[in-house]
Amino acid sequence: SEAFDPAEHSHRRRNPLTGQWVLVSPHRAKRPWQGAQEAADERRAPAHDPGCYLCAGNARVTGERNPDYRGPFVFTNDFAAMMADAPDAPEAADPLFSTQVARGTSRVICFSPDHGRTLPELAHAEVRAVVDTWCAQSAELGQRWRWVQVFENKGAAMGCSNPHPHGQVWACDFLPNEAATEDREQLAYRAAHGRPLLLDVALREAGGERVVVSNAHWLAIVPYWATWPFETLLLPRFAVQRLPDLTDLQREDLAAAVRELTARYDNLFQCSFPYSMGWHGAPFGDGDTAHWQLHAHFYPPLLRSATVRKFMVGFEMLAEAQRDLTPEQAAARLRALPATHYREREQ
Amino acid sequence: SEAFDPAEHSHRRRNPLTGQWVLVSPHRAKRPWQGAQEAADERRAPAHDPGCYLCAGNARVTGERNPDYRGPFVFTNDFAAMMADAPDAPEAADPLFSTQVARGTSRVICFSPDHGRTLPELAHAEVRAVVDTWCAQSAELGQRWRWVQVFENKGAAMGCSNPHPHGQVWACDFLPNEAATEDREQLAYRAAHGRPLLLDVALREAGGERVVVSNAHWLAIVPYWATWPFETLLLPRFAVQRLPDLTDLQREDLAAAVRELTARYDNLFQCSFPYSMGWHGAPFGDGDTAHWQLHAHFYPPLLRSATVRKFMVGFEMLAEAQRDLTPEQAAARLRALPATHYREREQ
Ligand SMILES: O=P(O)(O)O[C@H]1O[C@H](CO)[C@@H](O)[C@H](O)[C@H]1O
Ligand SMILES: O=P(O)(O)O[C@H]1O[C@H](CO)[C@@H](O)[C@H](O)[C@H]1O
Repeated sequence: SEAFDPAEHSHRRRNPLTGQWVLVSPHRAKRPWQGAQEAADERRAPAHDPGCYLCAGNARVTGERNPDYRGPFVFTNDFAAMMADAPDAPEAADPLFSTQVARGTSRVICFSPDHGRTLPELAHAEVRAVVDTWCAQSAELGQRWRWVQVFENKGAAMGCSNPHPHGQVWACDFLPNEAATEDREQLAYRAAHGRPLLLDVALREAGGERVVVSNAHWLAIVPYWATWPFETLLLPRFAVQRLPDLTDLQREDLAAAVRELTARYDNLFQCSFPYSMGWHGAPFGDGDTAHWQLHAHFYPPLLRSATVRKFMVGFEMLAEAQRDLTPEQAAARLRALPATHYREREQ
Repeated sequence: SEAFDPAEHSHRRRNPLTGQWVLVSPHRAKRPWQGAQEAADERRAPAHDPGCYLCAGNARVTGERNPDYRGPFVFTNDFAAMMADAPDAPEAADPLFSTQVARGTSRVICFSPDHGRTLPELAHAEVRAVVDTWCAQSAELGQRWRWVQVFENKGAAMGCSNPHPHGQVWACDFLPNEAATEDREQLAYRAAHGRPLLLDVALREAGGERVVVSNAHWLAIVPYWATWPFETLLLPRFAVQRLPDLTDLQREDLAAAVRELTARYDNLFQCSFPYSMGWHGAPFGDGDTAHWQLHAHFYPPLLRSATVRKFMVGFEMLAEAQRDLTPEQAAARLRALPATHYREREQ
């Protein structure tokens, strides 16, 4: 009988961070596509847009005016999803209808005053300033809140409601689902193997076929269990639990890794590559968190071109995530691209 | 201090079928939207489209020709995500890189020869024929496969790659993530309370503020823990584990409930309302499955209008699902609409 070939035969892979499986169907990439097309984001916007409520000096929806900022600019979200002072919800012991209070806050992080340049198009020092802002926001919000979620929705395809390059940080007094799951799995791994799960992953993946970006301190891989076509996991090659603990050198290398990874993404289909990305680190004020390892997930939706995305619908929502090319194939494609942004090379 | 008001204050609710929480932010519905707009699907397509590879008598991508079918028409997917005969994957005991073989098959179910009419626009007898097809496919595929996933992706916004009204059925030899999770939670509930979880939900919700559709045998509710804005859960009001076990009368009522629920959906924004829906029932050949109760999930993405959807991105992907109106508000809106389709009333 035929030998198993992961690039040919349907199989499942297990995500050790969540305990969930993903169905890999490499032979399916051949099917034709007659479905929805995204609007490709190929134009470069002007450096300042008078109608943008995130640009320096402009008015926001609330009427408040942004300062004439020069680096990253952080402000409290005018429509936060959590309230810092929500009253206690009645804690019913009902197994079918449980409610919990959810307190928190949410901020917007404009990466730079430039309306037209996303992370890979900023200079190294400008990306370094974004890294420092992620770290400083985590440190500050971590003093009050248990979970600090730094993230970026990039592109209209990922629900970004304003094209000015920006991220967000939502902080809350509870451990959200994904954090609770990763906490549980990392704890179990450390109990069984004595080391943080993701440090072992970084050790084993370095130099391997799933690597996309690699420097002295960081590794970006398409994880063995990736669900999105070009999903990546950005990992430190040293033990570290939270963003604020990063040293100066580690931040320098992180800025370089983020810039290179996002440049490779844009280079793949020569467009501004949409994604949601975000940081996971140890919860704040939780006692022993030695099982935690800091990391960032990048979840980009595009599959075949600048206009054809993967839909996580139907079978995926009701049963299990499914992918059409192997993580090794995705990594090879991203690795084969130039490390510098196509627009930089056009100049 | 202020009293807790679920229609005003941020809080979390727990999904007893999955053990996952959802963040409810009712005050957030006021934020402006400048992001992506969907193409509203308001036109009615012709009854036959010569370019459609699902219409009766037409050729498919493979060159094979569809028969001149009159009712539902089922064929094996030309680009199935699983192979019935994939070779065994090497079962490594590696905790970081686990692989499993995934065998299965996948079929397409054209609901009717009419290219232009979706479920709520079909006559009752035509929807009943779809119900019977769901049941027959489950019975047949359940003889060979452990999990039979009947589902429909409706609309381009939900990755539907052909507008001819159709669903799918994917069957496989493993319990997918969602099935395994619901199995675990239903088992635990029955062990603790002696009855199937979802039968208790149906008993407690009947006549209540989250009901959207109700008849002698079925109940559609916006579940207390809904994540999508207008998500619904279609529940039997009697104990039943699997689709093929439904009696003639129960199927009649199911056809009526599906027709009414999807008509209310279309009526909400006077458009063909996109969603992914699918059936969950007890796995086949699993021994004691008395904790299982058959049910269907409807996951529709629209939020504010025919063109503005909810994006499950950023915080949702990295931390926790979040919603902007309460399930009670969503149910009240759907309940206030006419039970018959707006196009039927226009005639
Ligand atoms: O099989 P289709 O309709 O071509 O494809 C659609 O449904 C599948 C099952 O939910 C998904 O995996 C695809 O991403 C989606 O585009
Ligand atoms: O806050 P924004 O950018 O307006 O909104 C976006 O990000 C949020 C957090 O991921 C999501 O809840 C919204 O659905 C999305 O549109």
